[in-house]
Amino acid sequence: MRTIKASSYLVNIGENALSQFDFSSYSKISIIVDENTSRLCLKILIKKNCLLKDSLIIKIKSGEEYKTIKTCLSIWKQLTENNFDRDSLLINLGGGVIGDIGGFCASTYKRGIDFVQIPTSLLAMTDASVGGKSGIDFIGFKNQIGIFNNPKSVLIYPAFLNTLSDKKLKSGFAEVLKHALIANIKLWKKLKSTHFDKLDWEEIIYTSVEIKKSIVQSDPLEKGDRKKLNFGHTFGHAIESYYLEKKKPILHGDAIFMGILLESEMSNITAIEKIEIKKFILANFDLPNLPAKKELIKFIKNDKKNKDCKISFSLLKNIGDCTTNNLFQLDEL
Amino acid sequence: MRTIKASSYLVNIGENALSQFDFSSYSKISIIVDENTSRLCLKILIKKNCLLKDSLIIKIKSGEEYKTIKTCLSIWKQLTENNFDRDSLLINLGGGVIGDIGGFCASTYKRGIDFVQIPTSLLAMTDASVGGKSGIDFIGFKNQIGIFNNPKSVLIYPAFLNTLSDKKLKSGFAEVLKHALIANIKLWKKLKSTHFDKLDWEEIIYTSVEIKKSIVQSDPLEKGDRKKLNFGHTFGHAIESYYLEKKKPILHGDAIFMGILLESEMSNITAIEKIEIKKFILANFDLPNLPAKKELIKFIKNDKKNKDCKISFSLLKNIGDCTTNNLFQLDEL
Repeated sequence: MRTIKASSYLVNIGENALSQFDFSSYSKISIIVDENTSRLCLKILIKKNCLLKDSLIIKIKSGEEYKTIKTCLSIWKQLTENNFDRDSLLINLGGGVIGDIGGFCASTYKRGIDFVQIPTSLLAMTDASVGGKSGIDFIGFKNQIGIFNNPKSVLIYPAFLNTLSDKKLKSGFAEVLKHALIANIKLWKKLKSTHFDKLDWEEIIYTSVEIKKSIVQSDPLEKGDRKKLNFGHTFGHAIESYYLEKKKPILHGDAIFMGILLESEMSNITAIEKIEIKKFILANFDLPNLPAKKELIKFIKNDKKNKDCKISFSLLKNIGDCTTNNLFQLDEL
Repeated sequence: MRTIKASSYLVNIGENALSQFDFSSYSKISIIVDENTSRLCLKILIKKNCLLKDSLIIKIKSGEEYKTIKTCLSIWKQLTENNFDRDSLLINLGGGVIGDIGGFCASTYKRGIDFVQIPTSLLAMTDASVGGKSGIDFIGFKNQIGIFNNPKSVLIYPAFLNTLSDKKLKSGFAEVLKHALIANIKLWKKLKSTHFDKLDWEEIIYTSVEIKKSIVQSDPLEKGDRKKLNFGHTFGHAIESYYLEKKKPILHGDAIFMGILLESEMSNITAIEKIEIKKFILANFDLPNLPAKKELIKFIKNDKKNKDCKISFSLLKNIGDCTTNNLFQLDEL
């Protein structure tokens, strides 16, 4: 068991993580699941916490295309109809979509009830688990509506990774790679030199969460340094929105891999380093087609980090270091 | 000009209040209005701040029945389509509905942009102006979805009261009366002994906001003392929901007057005091019919302050003092 203290709450990582929270003080508990986590993870969670056996199970559909206000309405409705009061708890058992939407619903239900994140995908474990971001997509724009609010705790049980398809697991690796590139050259060297199947997941998750936590802690509301975490995400989100609009949603991680490719190219690192990153990504991960840049402009224009019509990128300074507020005009891209 | 410091922001009250905020640092500004404030208040605001003349005007319909997610969707959409970024500002120019819904939309747009409250009704000036509550109604329940988040500033221009009908102005008096009864016997004596037309509004607003601020400051998230402000509101909200469900919405203040009547009766004050309160309300304010208590139970069951199926009331201990967490079973009401 490893524990990370992130501002007001604990992130527990390990075999015993699921029993590291006291659920007994809540008036009612609801668990949000999707068709995958309801089948593969829910029983394990309840087995480790018999208090949860009478929880209200709220099932939503998996996939980014359901991270919408419509799904929120359904969650708020079920909480209301089951008389959930302010002393109740929401547990978000799933990947990034469930964490984001569940965090938003809990933070706004009766002006805010407690919630616990139990991420089940690699992406949610290493990225969404700290930072307090929640949100939903809106008229084609990613996380357009949402808030900053921390969970009561994050419980990371690495064995849930076994429930993922190889494709989903690998896709989640994008945020681990990003954390290495922007903040930890040692981790980057390890990733390059270790075969994917030989990685120690508990350690990888721990290191990745530590990196993210340090950056978030220095800038919780994304006014400065936290923007480093946006490396790969300006183009990444645009690619994701592009495919979402085409009604062919792709995995978030896959979009971020492509974003990392494009934004490494724009970074002030050596040509050899650029090739190393490109080779690492293309050799290990099977990605969708990269859209033409001009197709992505429309989505980039609405990025939350833009200022005065200029596009703000976070780019690598070196491997393991990152600068923010690199401003580009649209026609420079 | 009088100024009250409420946690992180200032409440300015007086003839010059509208020019007491620096609007120049924002990338874009939008002003939310309804058909009344767009006609009666918007010009005055812009005249005092020429910087606001190019603001995006978002018009919503007045009335509690529009304090819904549908109105939020329309506001978020207009902000998105006009490329509002994170450095933009929302000004809420209106009564309680605009303050509540505008505060919620600003707090959730791109995970939160700044907003300024310019309350135009007596109720919004004396009550909604401090406390950081925002929210919308949902499937028949008042403020079921919302959050706590403070504005950047509150600008109270008492002359806006002249834009209100006599009925609307008087209805807003409910929160002033509540503040006097729960915390300030001197104010109660003044209200009793002064003819309505002779009241000094700037002073009344100032005293009322001061009372609310002191209570809120001691308990921003409504875990303890802040519940005092709920006096008159448990039944009050139920009465409001009852009429809303009947599609005959009544003024919030009128519902609160009736709530104060019912909850004064339940309070541990003398019979003479109860009669005084009743006489004061019935002599000065023209109220809708009081529904039978059994009609209100359904709405009371979902009150945000309930605990373990018991209904929690805030009741008067004396005139000018209040106790919280007075628990009642439904069949005791």
